[in-house]
Amino acid sequence: MEQIPRFLSWRNMLVLSLAVNFSLILKILKGEKERGDSWDRTVYSSIWPVVSTTALGSSSLLSSASCNYSKIEEDDDRIINLKLGDPTVYERYWQEMGDVTTMVIPGWQSLSYFSDNNNLCWFLEPELGKEIVRVHKIVGNAVTQDRFIVVGTGSTQLYQAALYALSPHDDSGPINVVSAAPYYSSYPLITDCLKSGLYRWGGDAMTYKEEGPYIELVTSPNNPDGFLREPVVNSSKGILIHDLAYYWPQYTPITSAADHDVMLFTASKSTGHAGMRIGWALVKDRETARKMTEYIELNTIGVSKDSQLRVAKVLKAVSDSCGNETAKSFFEHSYDAMYERWKLLKQAAKDTKRFTVPDFVSQRCNFFGKVFELQPAFAWFKCEEGIVDCEKFLREEKKILTKSGKHFGDDQSYVRISMLDRDTNFNIFLHRVSVSSNSTL
Amino acid sequence: MEQIPRFLSWRNMLVLSLAVNFSLILKILKGEKERGDSWDRTVYSSIWPVVSTTALGSSSLLSSASCNYSKIEEDDDRIINLKLGDPTVYERYWQEMGDVTTMVIPGWQSLSYFSDNNNLCWFLEPELGKEIVRVHKIVGNAVTQDRFIVVGTGSTQLYQAALYALSPHDDSGPINVVSAAPYYSSYPLITDCLKSGLYRWGGDAMTYKEEGPYIELVTSPNNPDGFLREPVVNSSKGILIHDLAYYWPQYTPITSAADHDVMLFTASKSTGHAGMRIGWALVKDRETARKMTEYIELNTIGVSKDSQLRVAKVLKAVSDSCGNETAKSFFEHSYDAMYERWKLLKQAAKDTKRFTVPDFVSQRCNFFGKVFELQPAFAWFKCEEGIVDCEKFLREEKKILTKSGKHFGDDQSYVRISMLDRDTNFNIFLHRVSVSSNSTL
Repeated sequence: MEQIPRFLSWRNMLVLSLAVNFSLILKILKGEKERGDSWDRTVYSSIWPVVSTTALGSSSLLSSASCNYSKIEEDDDRIINLKLGDPTVYERYWQEMGDVTTMVIPGWQSLSYFSDNNNLCWFLEPELGKEIVRVHKIVGNAVTQDRFIVVGTGSTQLYQAALYALSPHDDSGPINVVSAAPYYSSYPLITDCLKSGLYRWGGDAMTYKEEGPYIELVTSPNNPDGFLREPVVNSSKGILIHDLAYYWPQYTPITSAADHDVMLFTASKSTGHAGMRIGWALVKDRETARKMTEYIELNTIGVSKDSQLRVAKVLKAVSDSCGNETAKSFFEHSYDAMYERWKLLKQAAKDTKRFTVPDFVSQRCNFFGKVFELQPAFAWFKCEEGIVDCEKFLREEKKILTKSGKHFGDDQSYVRISMLDRDTNFNIFLHRVSVSSNSTL
Repeated sequence: MEQIPRFLSWRNMLVLSLAVNFSLILKILKGEKERGDSWDRTVYSSIWPVVSTTALGSSSLLSSASCNYSKIEEDDDRIINLKLGDPTVYERYWQEMGDVTTMVIPGWQSLSYFSDNNNLCWFLEPELGKEIVRVHKIVGNAVTQDRFIVVGTGSTQLYQAALYALSPHDDSGPINVVSAAPYYSSYPLITDCLKSGLYRWGGDAMTYKEEGPYIELVTSPNNPDGFLREPVVNSSKGILIHDLAYYWPQYTPITSAADHDVMLFTASKSTGHAGMRIGWALVKDRETARKMTEYIELNTIGVSKDSQLRVAKVLKAVSDSCGNETAKSFFEHSYDAMYERWKLLKQAAKDTKRFTVPDFVSQRCNFFGKVFELQPAFAWFKCEEGIVDCEKFLREEKKILTKSGKHFGDDQSYVRISMLDRDTNFNIFLHRVSVSSNSTL
């Protein structure tokens, strides 16, 4: 590497700095004739690239975003994809948070496979472990004391790690894995994709009657329909995996700290950082945690350090925001966004009568200290007026892509619709399902 | 978010800037009395935290690092773990490269699952795809034209994706997966860990005689013994996966651009960034690439965007360094480091006669334009003087952890030893295997 003439550099920096002084003086002089407001916008947009805002062109805060779907600018040809739960609704919050969660990673970082040799989960970054415990304590949604934390490449990998850890490895054959319909559509696909001899998809837990051990997946709040769940198979031989991806106060009242054997969480749905691919499991039993770690070691030799460190920083910002009395917390912002969307969707259902969404009961949330209804990440949307295939209808007549109820072990008159897309897409969706078309709905 | 009084900010910035001027003037005046060299170090260490350097305390460049093992400061109680190929040997190079590969990631990045909806591999960051093609073109180690790129959470995940894609999904039962011994110890474990009905470990390819289709893994240069490899099963029914993790010019002469159906590469061994967990596959057949993508979607719903972007930046720096005529390229640096280590290890083997390492033939490298011997990432180390269990001997007598030959389908008199650890550990290892102990070796 070439030696840089440092002595000369200081002189150069002085010249540069003097030039900066000069331009600042000019700016201040110019500023006396202009309004400060316009500068605010200039500075803001020069730091944060412009992304899609609401169809109304609002750049205001989430809480004050007005989503008047009757005034949106419709683009009839555009296909709106609400098939997946891509959590881009949170993008604007993180933009507005500025550089609090900006990460600077030097090139020599992340060379070693190891994060913490003293931890059973040797690839867990200690900083992430610390922030996971902190955020759960603040929100009060899960017990972390005396729990092992296993980090995964999203909670999807942790689900497979849990299956590997909890299935018998003797010659008793594959254990059945069940979940009450409607269940997360990826569960059967992931479970059966390698035709494992350890486990196999056993279908709807509501109708499961076989003898012997089985694994029951309890997703609460549930994906796709949003309801809170308990195990449903009436047997003492069940091994439980609790998928608590949506057990956060923007989606559901936090009524108690969840306290189960294996609990799965993910950054995708808690803070919206799906592209980082980070999930974590809170595990009671040491041997289960060890085997889950073993699976991840075999499957991917650990989990991206970069993303772990970023999630640690994001969770820290979330926890810090909860203690800030002068500004809204992340959960208040995201609660408001979900509240607004559900209010609009329920009103549209009531006005048009062409579709229905579930009714939820109200409960008291310990975190917010108030009573509210569930406002899930997905709408379990039912076409009325005799439409048999709701997915086909929305795709062909409304150019809205959704996921059919049949993938969730349920009826085709249902579809799952993401409530987590950007404002623009949500507004167009709302507009299209509210107005008449050639056909019904 | 609170409104910041911008107008006031400009004034504040001016005051700050003037203060910087003042300190710069002081620095320059002070510098007239001091040597520029000491400033270089001050500036350097203030930006890059100090990490372990060689046992000699050298902070010089890799190429000039002196590894005189007779002078090292031994710490008899310290256990040296050379079991895994943790590529920390490259850490110093990336530190010395400064901020060329420093990554700044704002908090609102990586929210969406998607990277490129127009790509078959929808979670591949376009920037990474571009840099993968560029580095292969520069090095000349693989054909990229008309190939699909599939990104994975390390090449380990891509190996499983390839098995999923290449195995028959009908009822013909699991396909045998074979590789010539000594083979990478993780292959059998990964292949059989879920007792898949799609594929199973079929053992040593050298003795494989079964009829019908099979998958043969060709690791070249091979892990653990470093030799270049060709398929060995004499049948037309073989489906090949080429693991080319070590086909880079610091380890082996690049004799031609590899041109196989499925080729696996990884950042861990090419640039040393194992903790990022990024690998890539170059795939000829569209349907194979599609199914590999499908597996990764099911397994982890894509690959960390953060790490993909970091690897893109690192690969760019590597490619740029190859075109820099005034400074050594990354590959020249890493070649020199490996050359130095192999020279010392071979000399120690010759001097003591207590162990042997393989002899490699010399070949002409198209990238460097010179003839040299292979200098692999692992030493396939054989204990002599009648030691039956080499791993046990090194562990108990020398406090060096290695991986026994038995895990690689070979003899216990062999162990695999990482040549990629930090200088300190490599030097202690070399010292301990060179001096007499209570026992032999």
